[in-house]
Parts: sequence; C-alpha cells; structure tokens
Amino acid sequence: MTIGTVGAVKGLLPEEVKSVGGQVILSNTYHLHLRPGEDIVEKAGGLHKFMNWDGPILTDSGGFQVFSLSGIRKLTEEGVEFQSHLNGEKIFLTPEKAIEIQMKLGSDIMMVLDECPAANKDRKYVEKSLKLTTRWAKRCKEYAETQLAQRQNQPNGKTSPTAKPAQQLFGIVQGGMHSDLRKESAKELIEIGFDGYAIGGLSVGEPNEVMYEMLSEVVPELPIDKPRYLMGVGTPEDILEAVERGVDMFDCVMPTRNARHGHLFTSKGIVRIKKEEFKEDLSSLDDECDCYTCKNFTKAYLRHLHIANELLGLRLNTLHNVAFYQKLMKDIRKSIENDKFDEFKKEFLNKTLS
Amino acid sequence: MTIGTVGAVKGLLPEEVKSVGGQVILSNTYHLHLRPGEDIVEKAGGLHKFMNWDGPILTDSGGFQVFSLSGIRKLTEEGVEFQSHLNGEKIFLTPEKAIEIQMKLGSDIMMVLDECPAANKDRKYVEKSLKLTTRWAKRCKEYAETQLAQRQNQPNGKTSPTAKPAQQLFGIVQGGMHSDLRKESAKELIEIGFDGYAIGGLSVGEPNEVMYEMLSEVVPELPIDKPRYLMGVGTPEDILEAVERGVDMFDCVMPTRNARHGHLFTSKGIVRIKKEEFKEDLSSLDDECDCYTCKNFTKAYLRHLHIANELLGLRLNTLHNVAFYQKLMKDIRKSIENDKFDEFKKEFLNKTLS
Repeated sequence: MTIGTVGAVKGLLPEEVKSVGGQVILSNTYHLHLRPGEDIVEKAGGLHKFMNWDGPILTDSGGFQVFSLSGIRKLTEEGVEFQSHLNGEKIFLTPEKAIEIQMKLGSDIMMVLDECPAANKDRKYVEKSLKLTTRWAKRCKEYAETQLAQRQNQPNGKTSPTAKPAQQLFGIVQGGMHSDLRKESAKELIEIGFDGYAIGGLSVGEPNEVMYEMLSEVVPELPIDKPRYLMGVGTPEDILEAVERGVDMFDCVMPTRNARHGHLFTSKGIVRIKKEEFKEDLSSLDDECDCYTCKNFTKAYLRHLHIANELLGLRLNTLHNVAFYQKLMKDIRKSIENDKFDEFKKEFLNKTLS
Repeated sequence: MTIGTVGAVKGLLPEEVKSVGGQVILSNTYHLHLRPGEDIVEKAGGLHKFMNWDGPILTDSGGFQVFSLSGIRKLTEEGVEFQSHLNGEKIFLTPEKAIEIQMKLGSDIMMVLDECPAANKDRKYVEKSLKLTTRWAKRCKEYAETQLAQRQNQPNGKTSPTAKPAQQLFGIVQGGMHSDLRKESAKELIEIGFDGYAIGGLSVGEPNEVMYEMLSEVVPELPIDKPRYLMGVGTPEDILEAVERGVDMFDCVMPTRNARHGHLFTSKGIVRIKKEEFKEDLSSLDDECDCYTCKNFTKAYLRHLHIANELLGLRLNTLHNVAFYQKLMKDIRKSIENDKFDEFKKEFLNKTLS
C-alpha cells in the first residue's frame, strides 16, 4: 500500500499511483481527524471523492500516531487522551470514536484502535497492554457491526452516509517480542472475528531476526483465507522475508519518504542520487524500470534536481520508488503463482545487496 | 513563457506545461552555470534533452541575477566579476562568455549580457551604464555571429555541438525611467540588429504608471516585425497594459511562485487558498478553468493540502496558475485576431478586480 497520510500521496497524483500498479492507498485517521477533520471529508462525500482516488483505501485507527507522535497521554479503559502534535489541543479517542471517524472517512478497510507500547516496556506491561488492546478490538468490532447493520437497514439513519455496509475491519495482533503473547493475541482476535489480521508493533527497533522470528511464530496462527498484514514494513528484504512467512499485505513510508531524501531503490541496489559519481552520469536511474522517471531522465538530471532542491526532483524520485515497490510486489505475486518464490527471492537479494 | 530557472519548472513535468498551452520555457544562465554547469548540460546534448522539453527554450544572459542575487561585483569594460550566492566562488562573466554558455545550453533564444543598474541610481549612472550595456550588446552579437557561422561551416569545429545555427539573439533595451535614454538604447540596438528586442529594468519597484509610460514611449521605437519582449512582467493587469502598448512576449515567476504560496489566479480574481472561508468549500477553484486541478479537486481539498504543507498542493496550485496565465495569453491573442482586444481587456479587468 502506498502511503497518503493526510489524504494525498506526497507529490503524486492518484492516477500516477495507479499507473505504476498501486492498488491501495493508506491514510491516517489521526492526521485526518486533526486536519481537515472527518466532518469535512464526510461532507465531501468521503475520502475517495475528496482526494480523487477510486481505488481501495485503508485507514489506520490513529493508535500508532497517538502513541508515537502526540503529546501527554492518559490511558484508561475507556480510551486514550492525547494532545495534538499540531496545536496541543486535548483529544479523547475511544475504540468507538476511532471507528466512527473511519466511517466518516469512508475507507474500505478500517483498523481497530490498539495500544502500541513503547519498545522498552517490560513483559508485564506488554501483557497488561495486550489485554486492553483485545478488549478495545472487541468494542471496535461490536460498534462497527452495529453501525454497519444500521446503515444497511436504515440508509438515512444516524450512521454516517459515507459508511459502507461492505466496509471491512481488521484486527491487530500485538504482544511485543513475546511469541506466546502474540499467539494469545491472535487467538483472541480470531475469536472476535475480523475481515483481516494485521501484525502491529514490529519493526520498532528490534533486530531483523527478532521480527522474522515473531512472524514465523504468529503468522501460521492466522486464518489462511483472510489477508495477513504486516504494518509499517519495510525494506525490500524485510518484505521478502515476511512474504516467505505468509504475510500478504504491507504499508511503509519508505518508498515515498526515502525518495524525498534522494535514496532510490533500483534493481541493482540503492542509489544515493546526491553522490558526486552521478554528476555526469547520463544513463537512466534503473534500466530495468519502465517508470516515467527512468524512461525520460538521466541520473545526472535527477542529481541536479536533488542538489538544487527542486520540487520536480522530489516528484520524479517518488514516482520511481513507488513504481519500484509495486514492481517488487508484482514480481513476488508472479513468482508465487509460478511456484518460484525461493528462486526469485534469492536472485533479487543477490542483485540488490551485492 | 513559463519559468524553469534551473532547467525544471518547479513541480511540473514539461509535458504538463505543454498540456496547458505552455509554449516557451525560460531558464537561467546564471543558475545553470553555477549548477550543474553548462558543460554537463552540453554533454547531455543540451538543455532540451537534459530536461526532456522539446519546445522552445529562452535563456537569459545571467546579467539580471549577477546584479540582484550574487555577492560583491567588480564591473569593468571587459565584464563583471561576482560571487556565487551558493558558495561564494568568484566568477568572471563577459558578454562573450554569456553567449558561450547559452550556446552550450543550446537554447533557442539567447539574451545579451546587460548591466541592470539598481532602481535608486541617478540619471548620470544610468546613462553611463547604458553605454556599457550597448557596447556589451554589440560584443554579444559579434561573438554569436562568428560562432554560429563557424558552427554552420565547420560542424565539427571548436564551437559547441549544442549551438544551433538558428539560435536567435535578443537585445535588451535599458535606460531606467528615462524615456529619452530608452529611445536611444532602442535605436542603438536596432543598428546592431537583433532577432528580437527585450525591455529590461522595468517592474523594479516603480509605480505601474511609470512602467506603462516607459512602454508607451519605447515600444513604438522597436521594429514591428520582430518580437518585443517585456522581461519579468507581471500581473495579468500589467500584461494587458503592456500588450495594449505593443508587447508580444512575457516571462514571470508570478504564476509558479505565487502558486506555492497559495496565491491563485482565477477568472473571478485572486483566491488565497489558506483562508478559513474555503475550509468547507466543495466547489472547484475556477469554474471557467478546465485544468486538471479544477476538474478534479475542490477548494476544500486544495486548502487542506496547503495548510498541511503537502507537496501535491504545490503541484496542483502551480498547474492551475500556469494554465490560467496560458489561457489569458490565448484569450488575448484571440481577441486581437478578432479585433476585440479593448473589450476583452475591459471585461477581464472588471471580472478579476471587482
């Protein structure tokens, strides 16, 4: 999924995301709640219309940003009080409220509100936090179910007109770096029953091997007929390792954010476009890529735009990185269909990590 | 002409500039000389190839930036020494060098090197400066003529391979706010003989009426069968007043720069998109505009992107402003062809200034 935090992929038109194979855009409930506010998006007919994207949208619940971006938090059974990182305003978010906002946004996939404990918390804290997260997940499910049923039965009732009966809800497996807690989390979420299952709280600073180990333990516990989604991951290598362990879906700021820093993914590995060696390099960025950037511009030009801080550079870099990630996922799907995933993975890593 | 200072229109692809009617892109010799350097552009096959724009390119001579952007300047008969605003490097620019750089860039229209005296200089200074500017103009013409003749007769000779025998050279009328000096300048430039005539050193802080007065005095002195180009102007109103006085060509950062500040031109006047009143405005930016931005997005969305500092906002705003200016010029041309310029001007100003 391509990241469109505030309802816009940074620098790209929705149709460009689609043109390079982008399927789902992820937007952030936390950001959109603060600005412009879900009521305006609802009035505009939902996020799809607001941002002019007719493909699927996944909205997160705001949980991750509340616990990473915002100020002072008061955590209770009822919900979490936090301060806006923009203006300090105090906001109280509950599981029900998180769903209500996502219904007003009218996304295709909603996420449950979860607590995201900091990476340095001990097992006891994580255990307690997980129990709360599970109770919140249940409240999200119940609220969503009730509201969506109402919406179906009384299309003009109190439920947001942008809520869709088909709106899906994913649970989020937590449990820190404790595989038994993660398995317990998975089991409890499955009992509640969701349309898909996400794995949260990984890639938060732990060694890659620990993340892979957690995935090896928990993914097999999740229903094979539902999407399994690893949140906030990651490098091409991480994606390959996670796919090998059964993950189906990913989101990550890496292609878009790194592009803006001139950190470009290519079939031959990372290109840091600011480097002196590209100053007179008149070859294309990636000769295996057929994106607009690679077809029309040289590394020397991209370097020039980067060094001169030109807007167009951010845009051309972003387009390429998003195209690269989408091609990677397409190649992965194809290799799985042809039963050649292992070969593909080995070859890809050989080429890009050499 | 749309501004592409460093060989890129800020935020737009060349094909987007073309799609909204853009005909000529203006790039800056000063900026391109500093970064990436004309030798790299020449190696890339010229600026057209480097930036992937197959339409005409006008390059200025660097004069204006030397006298406005750069540090300590030593002005002699031979040329001007200045310090790069980027790294303080000392650079010596002569009329011949300015042409040589523009040949390496391979633009379609080159400009002569001129001295641009500060607006506060007295008549005596302006008079002296003008004489130098005229001598420099002559040197530019002679150098360009010799080089382009060599290029035509010895395609593999010493002249830059990106220089084109058809490369045009425009003179620049100076003379401050003194109409007799401006007429003298025009007369001397016509004697030297150029492919087009620009009017420089206006719109530098003087009242609009003074600029219009200068144009009324000097434009009739310029050959009617050559393009007459008012440099660095301006607002739609200024453009209409200048066209009325016989000007054919314009360049200005206003459409692109103002767009980035959320200052948008519309058929009903200026829209400052950050204003609270657009927060829930679900109408398009300009219902008389058929650019991509106006066809696909609401003012509420553009305001949201602006407030959130989103890259996509800069891009959508820029596309609209460039489209607006191109439509203005198209409408002006049509009104002239139909002998209805006066009506058009009156109507346009009524609508946008009310």
